[in-house]
Amino acid sequence: MEPLELHIIGCGSANPTQRHRPACQVLSTRGKHYMIDCGEGTQTRFAQQRLSMKRVGHVFISHAHGDHCLGLPGLICTMSLLGRTSQLHIHGPRELEPFLQSALELFCPNLEFQVNFHPVDTTLHQIVHEDRSMEVWSLPLRHRVPCCGYLFREKQGQRHILRDIIDMYEIPVSQINNIKAGMDWTLPDGTIIPNERLTAPPSPTRSYAYCSDTAPTPSLVPMIQGVDLLFHEATFDQDNEFRARQTFHSTTVEAAQTARDAQVGRLLIGHYSSRMHDEKKMLREAQAVFPQTMLADEGQRIII
Amino acid sequence: MEPLELHIIGCGSANPTQRHRPACQVLSTRGKHYMIDCGEGTQTRFAQQRLSMKRVGHVFISHAHGDHCLGLPGLICTMSLLGRTSQLHIHGPRELEPFLQSALELFCPNLEFQVNFHPVDTTLHQIVHEDRSMEVWSLPLRHRVPCCGYLFREKQGQRHILRDIIDMYEIPVSQINNIKAGMDWTLPDGTIIPNERLTAPPSPTRSYAYCSDTAPTPSLVPMIQGVDLLFHEATFDQDNEFRARQTFHSTTVEAAQTARDAQVGRLLIGHYSSRMHDEKKMLREAQAVFPQTMLADEGQRIII
Repeated sequence: MEPLELHIIGCGSANPTQRHRPACQVLSTRGKHYMIDCGEGTQTRFAQQRLSMKRVGHVFISHAHGDHCLGLPGLICTMSLLGRTSQLHIHGPRELEPFLQSALELFCPNLEFQVNFHPVDTTLHQIVHEDRSMEVWSLPLRHRVPCCGYLFREKQGQRHILRDIIDMYEIPVSQINNIKAGMDWTLPDGTIIPNERLTAPPSPTRSYAYCSDTAPTPSLVPMIQGVDLLFHEATFDQDNEFRARQTFHSTTVEAAQTARDAQVGRLLIGHYSSRMHDEKKMLREAQAVFPQTMLADEGQRIII
Repeated sequence: MEPLELHIIGCGSANPTQRHRPACQVLSTRGKHYMIDCGEGTQTRFAQQRLSMKRVGHVFISHAHGDHCLGLPGLICTMSLLGRTSQLHIHGPRELEPFLQSALELFCPNLEFQVNFHPVDTTLHQIVHEDRSMEVWSLPLRHRVPCCGYLFREKQGQRHILRDIIDMYEIPVSQINNIKAGMDWTLPDGTIIPNERLTAPPSPTRSYAYCSDTAPTPSLVPMIQGVDLLFHEATFDQDNEFRARQTFHSTTVEAAQTARDAQVGRLLIGHYSSRMHDEKKMLREAQAVFPQTMLADEGQRIII
């Protein structure tokens, strides 16, 4: 089974600190990097974490706050300097487009590759991108500006052939794809070998949900029900609940409640406010509600 | 005498490396930070180098390439988060304005302070800003897009009073400013004490020139004649002269020749290409032409 890995590039919030960087994550599988948010300095961190910009085909931006998208112009300029020719797709709230356009006109007037902007309606839960192996859904969130999270759900793959059995029945190579797709096999004497004897079930599909920035949003729960990994912002600890309310953010406990209600596999919290100095306390608060909680940190790589 | 200090925030070039950051410098005196260029990540480096954003009143941008100005939107957003109320002045080529405007509209719609953009004609050598103690001049450079350097020249200060002599003649405090300004003093018996006996000459004025990015530009030499410190880009070593020609940059030797011809005090080279791995070689090449050469490096603080 191809690994599905999450790389944390930045998990701080708007006000820069020495501990954390602005938001950026990369979900990586089958040689593809799906980028989620792109805060200032992302291009520099990419090299530090030995990730290849070439493999980024799609960028998903949650909302038009600087700490979630100011790395885009520099990233695109550098892709150009590195000789990129393949298209780049950027998905995000439509407010982003004029900024992106003016940045590209000024800084990359002679781009050798196409940058396609796909506006995302942040109020809807719908597929915003799909390819052979992955569906990406928008997740409406509640923040001070239009904002959505993203749900990555692997598509069901084909069944796995059982090599020994295939060899035993001398099934020709030309039929393997049909067998993987579920076809039975008929022997020369007319006996039908059911597909279940020739194949093993497909690999289980995996899912990841990214929810940042947001006030607690109960309507999110059914959309992310049972995901393997949930990143949910926890900008503040529980003592600062009033600040979370003022700024449309969540606390540790609120993130953990969402994870618990949605019965997710694991919870990853981050987007720490610069006011938060004791992340272990934040972890304890969240784990008291949802034990399978981890703290996000730059450079982290999580196998989903 | 108030110190005049140069802080190197970033001295790399467009393609990011693990060794250097995009362009930014701060010239600091009398509690003021004059910022020169503002590459991506400047706001983060600022805190690391214990510089205060509050003290930045003016930013001087050389040209509209990403590695010289993509840090501006994030810097301004963070100034806003930190509660700034005083005006910020940005000087640079007029191409910058639409980008800056679209970034501010999107990311900082409710700014509590004014951002004033002052377009600079990069083809002229003229004063672009002056305050009580400093003149800032534009320096026309030759690059692929409109580009200018900046010359910072301290204004001549007042003469220094000689406290003992002032006391001896019992000159009242109310007259000190006149004495500093050059006035003689008349004793009750009519004797005139010439100002030169009451005061010492004003502190020598200091000057700093920032020249990046540019192909070698002989017309620059008279404009920067005798400056105390010259930063001149040396994107390439001498082996890569052909690349310097293609990209309108300078080599180590060309930077040093400009410094020698302009008889500057010291030369600081930087804006290193990501292709350059041996900076000591670059230093040797420049010092062979102009011995008072130094290599720029992040975190450096140079007393002028």
